[in-house]
Amino acid sequence: MTDAEKATAPSRRALIGWGGAGLALGAAAAGGAVAMTRTGDDIEPTAAEAGAAVEFHGTHQAGIATPVQDRLHFAAFDVTTEDRAEFVQMLKDWTAAARRMAAGKAVGEGAYGGLAEAPPDDTGEALGLKPSRLTLTIGFGPSLFEKFDLADRRPEALVDLPQFAGDNLDRNRSGGDLCVQACADDPQVAVHAIRNLARIGFGKVVIKWSQLGFGKTSSTTPDAQTPRNLLGFKDGTRNIAGTETDRLKKFVWADSAKDAKDAPWMNGGSYLVARRIRMHIETWDRTSLQEQEDIIGRDKGEGAPVGKAKERDKPFLPAMKPDAHVRLAHPDSNHGATILRRGYSFTDGTDGLGRLEAGLFFLAYQKDVREGFIRIQRHLATDALNEYIQHVGSAVFAVPPGVRDKDDWWGSTLFSKEA
Amino acid sequence: MTDAEKATAPSRRALIGWGGAGLALGAAAAGGAVAMTRTGDDIEPTAAEAGAAVEFHGTHQAGIATPVQDRLHFAAFDVTTEDRAEFVQMLKDWTAAARRMAAGKAVGEGAYGGLAEAPPDDTGEALGLKPSRLTLTIGFGPSLFEKFDLADRRPEALVDLPQFAGDNLDRNRSGGDLCVQACADDPQVAVHAIRNLARIGFGKVVIKWSQLGFGKTSSTTPDAQTPRNLLGFKDGTRNIAGTETDRLKKFVWADSAKDAKDAPWMNGGSYLVARRIRMHIETWDRTSLQEQEDIIGRDKGEGAPVGKAKERDKPFLPAMKPDAHVRLAHPDSNHGATILRRGYSFTDGTDGLGRLEAGLFFLAYQKDVREGFIRIQRHLATDALNEYIQHVGSAVFAVPPGVRDKDDWWGSTLFSKEA
Repeated sequence: MTDAEKATAPSRRALIGWGGAGLALGAAAAGGAVAMTRTGDDIEPTAAEAGAAVEFHGTHQAGIATPVQDRLHFAAFDVTTEDRAEFVQMLKDWTAAARRMAAGKAVGEGAYGGLAEAPPDDTGEALGLKPSRLTLTIGFGPSLFEKFDLADRRPEALVDLPQFAGDNLDRNRSGGDLCVQACADDPQVAVHAIRNLARIGFGKVVIKWSQLGFGKTSSTTPDAQTPRNLLGFKDGTRNIAGTETDRLKKFVWADSAKDAKDAPWMNGGSYLVARRIRMHIETWDRTSLQEQEDIIGRDKGEGAPVGKAKERDKPFLPAMKPDAHVRLAHPDSNHGATILRRGYSFTDGTDGLGRLEAGLFFLAYQKDVREGFIRIQRHLATDALNEYIQHVGSAVFAVPPGVRDKDDWWGSTLFSKEA
Repeated sequence: MTDAEKATAPSRRALIGWGGAGLALGAAAAGGAVAMTRTGDDIEPTAAEAGAAVEFHGTHQAGIATPVQDRLHFAAFDVTTEDRAEFVQMLKDWTAAARRMAAGKAVGEGAYGGLAEAPPDDTGEALGLKPSRLTLTIGFGPSLFEKFDLADRRPEALVDLPQFAGDNLDRNRSGGDLCVQACADDPQVAVHAIRNLARIGFGKVVIKWSQLGFGKTSSTTPDAQTPRNLLGFKDGTRNIAGTETDRLKKFVWADSAKDAKDAPWMNGGSYLVARRIRMHIETWDRTSLQEQEDIIGRDKGEGAPVGKAKERDKPFLPAMKPDAHVRLAHPDSNHGATILRRGYSFTDGTDGLGRLEAGLFFLAYQKDVREGFIRIQRHLATDALNEYIQHVGSAVFAVPPGVRDKDDWWGSTLFSKEA
C-alpha cells in the first residue's frame, strides 16, 4: 500500500447500488471493497451510507437511477484536439480516473509516493474524504458528432433543442461537445473530480461552462422526504424512482431493439437535457401565498395538490387553474410524457442589480428527448410560472451505456468499429 | 402550534455551544429547547449534532468561535434608506428573524397559517430541514459610519485596508456598508437565511455582493481532522480553537478596557477581514510536487512542516525556504500576530478562458486589523505562493458583540445613545 492508499483506506466503505446497477463482482475486482447490493424498497441512505461508494460499473452509468446525492458539479467541455486516437486515449484515462475516484481513491497509483520532480497524479483536496457516493456520468453533445468522422453515428433521438417560448439563452452557458455530471454528498468530492478530469484532459478538451448545485430538488428515492426548490415548494413528488425498473425501462433507458430509430451503441444509455433556469426570487417572494399556490397547483406547506389533503394524493388536474405548473407539466397533459428529474438548486452570488443569481439547474434523463422534455416544455409555454423564471442556459447530450468492467471505458460503444 | 411550527418541531435538537458562548437560559427562553452546553476538549460534532441548533444569544456573536460549519453564504449589503429609525427597525426585524432561523424555525409566526392574500413570512425552502448549526453574524463596514450620524462612533481599529502588493480588486466584489456571514452544515439553510434577510431588508438595504463557500478550509475545533484547501494542502493546523479562551481573549475579542483605542460599544465584538482569493489551480496542478511543498513549507500528504514527520510537529522555520508560505505567515515571523481563520473554498463556474473560477474565500477575525491581517499580509508580499493566487475581492467589518437576550438586537450598542 502506498501512503496515499493508506490515507484513503479507512474511507472505503461498503458499496451501495440499486438492484440493476450494482455489479458485485466488478466492485470486488476494482476496489477490493465489500459489495453490498440492496434491492427493493430502499430508503434514503443513512448518514453512514452517505459516505460510501457507489459502484462505478454496470449496464447503465451510475448517476441516473442512483439515489440523488446532495451536491452537484456539472461541466461541459469542448474538444480542442483533432486527433481521434488522442481523444479516445483521453476517454480511457478519464475512465480509469473516474473508477478510482468513485471508489474513494486518489487518481493514479501512489499519488504522493511518486516522483517529487513531477506534478502529483492527484490534486489532493479530496485526500482523507469519504467516497461520498460520488458518481461521474459522461454525455456526448450534438457538436461532437461533427468531429472524428462520427456524423453517421449520431442518434436520431439526439435532436437539437428547438427555441422555446421565453428562452433567453446565454451561449456561454449552453451546449458543449461533451459533459460530465459529478454528484456526491460532499461538494469537495464533486469539485475534485471535475477538476482532475479537466487536468487530465488538458490539451485535448477545455471546460466550456460549469455549474455547481447545492441542493437536490428531485429525489429518485421512493418515500423519502421530497426536497424543496428555491420557490419554497416541494419538487418531484412523483419522479421516477431508482427502484421502478418498469418505468425506467419505459421512459429512461435507450433501447434500439424496441425502438429502431435509436442507435445500437446507445443501448442502455439515456438522453440528458440540462437547462439553467434563473428564478426571479425577489419578485416571487413578494407574491401572495394564494397566488404562489395557484401558480404551482399545490399548497406550500404540505405540498398537496389543489383540493387534496396530502402531498402524495393523486392530483385532480381540472381543479387547478388552466395555467398551473403542475397541471401543464403532468404526464396526463402530455400524452404520458415522463422524465427522470435530477435537478439542483443553485445560487451564484449576486447580479448587477443586487438580486441573488439563483434558480434551478434542471437535469432530466429520458429515452427520447422529442417525447420527453421537448413535448413537456412546449406545453409549458402558457405556464403561469413563466413570469417568475427564465431559461438562460441549455444543452442536450447522448449519455452512453455504463462501463461494463475494468477493461471497458467511457464511449467504447461509440468509438469501437463494430458497434 | 401552527402548521409551520409543527412541521419544524421534529427538527429542533439539543443546543450546542462552547463554554463561553452558550447561554442556557437564553436558549430555553427563546426556543423552548433543551440546552446542552459542552466545555473542555470538544471533538468534531457528530452527524446527529450537525443537525442541531447553535445558541443565538451570548456575550459574543455565534459564528466566530463556533466550530466551523461545512457551508457558507456570505452577503455584503449597501444601505439605501436615509432614515435612521427605519434602518434600526430593520436591524430589529433581522434579529428577530435570525433568532428564529438559528433555532430551526420559519421566519414569522405561522408562516403558512397566515393570510393567503399576503406574501408568506418565510420563503419556505428550509421548511422541514434541520437547524444545521446555522449561525448568522453581522458586521458593519467603514462606509456605514459615513451615514446616520455615526462618524464619531467609528472604532479606530476599523481601518480601511491598504493596497497590498499583488492586489487586483474587483470593486463589485469589495466593500459593503454591512455584512452577514451565514454558516450552516446544510447550504440550503445558509442560502435561505441570507435570502430572507435580503427580503426583510427590501427598500432599506440591497445586496452588493455575495459569496457561497462549499468547503471549510480552517477548523476551530482542536484535534479534528484539518481540512484541505483547493491547493490540496491542509490548511489551518494551528488555528485558534473555540475552546482556547485565553487566545480568543488575547487575539480575537475587542476589549476597550484593555485597549483604549477601541470603541466601548465594540466590547465583546471582533473585526472581520474578508478576501476573495482566486487560485490559478490549472497552473498549480502542473507544478511538481517538490515545488508545491517548497512553496507551502509542508509536505502534501501528511501536512508535516519541512523536516518534520507529523502535521502537528512544531515548525522549524529556518528549515523552510525564505519565501515559503508557512514561514512568512507564522506568528514568529510577524511579532506574534495571530488571527482566527474561518475561510471556505469556492468554485463559481468557469471563467472566459475555460479555467475553473475557484479559490479561497478568506475570512479572519481579530481584535485589531492593524496588528492582525494587515501585519501578516504585508509580510506575505514576498510569498512564493503569490505566483499562483490573486486577491480579487476585499472587505473589512466591525463585528459587534453578541445579542444578549430576546429583547436585545444586532447593533444595539452602536445605535443606543448611552454607549
